[in-house]
Amino acid sequence: MGKGLLIVFTGNGKGKTTAALGMAMRAAGHGLRVCFVQFIKGGWRYGELEAVKRFEGLIDLHVMGKGFTWKSDNIEEDARLAREAWEFACAAIASGVYHTVVLDEFTYLLHYQMLELEPCLRVLADRHPDQHVVITGRYAPQQLIDAADLVTEMQAVKHPLKGGVKAQQGIEF
Amino acid sequence: MGKGLLIVFTGNGKGKTTAALGMAMRAAGHGLRVCFVQFIKGGWRYGELEAVKRFEGLIDLHVMGKGFTWKSDNIEEDARLAREAWEFACAAIASGVYHTVVLDEFTYLLHYQMLELEPCLRVLADRHPDQHVVITGRYAPQQLIDAADLVTEMQAVKHPLKGGVKAQQGIEF
Repeated sequence: MGKGLLIVFTGNGKGKTTAALGMAMRAAGHGLRVCFVQFIKGGWRYGELEAVKRFEGLIDLHVMGKGFTWKSDNIEEDARLAREAWEFACAAIASGVYHTVVLDEFTYLLHYQMLELEPCLRVLADRHPDQHVVITGRYAPQQLIDAADLVTEMQAVKHPLKGGVKAQQGIEF
Repeated sequence: MGKGLLIVFTGNGKGKTTAALGMAMRAAGHGLRVCFVQFIKGGWRYGELEAVKRFEGLIDLHVMGKGFTWKSDNIEEDARLAREAWEFACAAIASGVYHTVVLDEFTYLLHYQMLELEPCLRVLADRHPDQHVVITGRYAPQQLIDAADLVTEMQAVKHPLKGGVKAQQGIEF
């Protein structure tokens, strides 16, 4: 029996979003529809956006939320944007049209307590049993890991930015 | 200063090839050319292949070598195929036309000693200084890790196939 999987890519290493992007394109390669919700505005750059355009009608990309850390001076405003972004994702999950829904960098909203964990887990648990959900981001809460079917921790063994090499087009973004 | 990176995705978790695929598509999204050399025949399926077709002229995919483990009864034949595949990859690296060369599942050839490590490392070290090389696969040898600029270890925290769920179209392949 097939079963919709809850997949988590977490850890401090590179490749979490990139693996989710690869999964989205693989599903689209099968002609299956994917909703890719980007919870951190500005995290995606030209390369990803142009790549996704080649899968028009199959991968729907939505950039939600705000800047890099979700740590700002205005916590109420952050929480409001986080709720809006999550509600959008909930609608995508409930719509029934997507083989896979990717919640990219979603863990940060949980980590910074912009959202309550319990209701989020309930939405994931109550989704259509055939639907796959992929969640990326550091600091995946233990309860999310417990709820997931497949969890990979990307561990940074070496990172060039620590060695003073600048981020590069086509590699880092 | 930009610098061609040697990037390794290793470890026993999911997402190594998928992250390399995402990187290839991101580079192609920038209009940059990628050579993706698949060292394990049969590792790729319909979804990846169809996805890559959308980047025709930008991503060149080459399936080399033989089946899943490179462990067979005919070690000499394996070694010959491994050398052929590696020589093909060397030519792609030397051609100067690729922004990025992906050596997918290449580590197994080193792990099973189908190739000598030292000459391989020399080819990687002597490549054009702007060229990026991405190597995936379990059991990356320590010397390869030492030579790399960016290393991520994908660690399996949970894997559904251990729980009896079958591999599924659009997710596992």
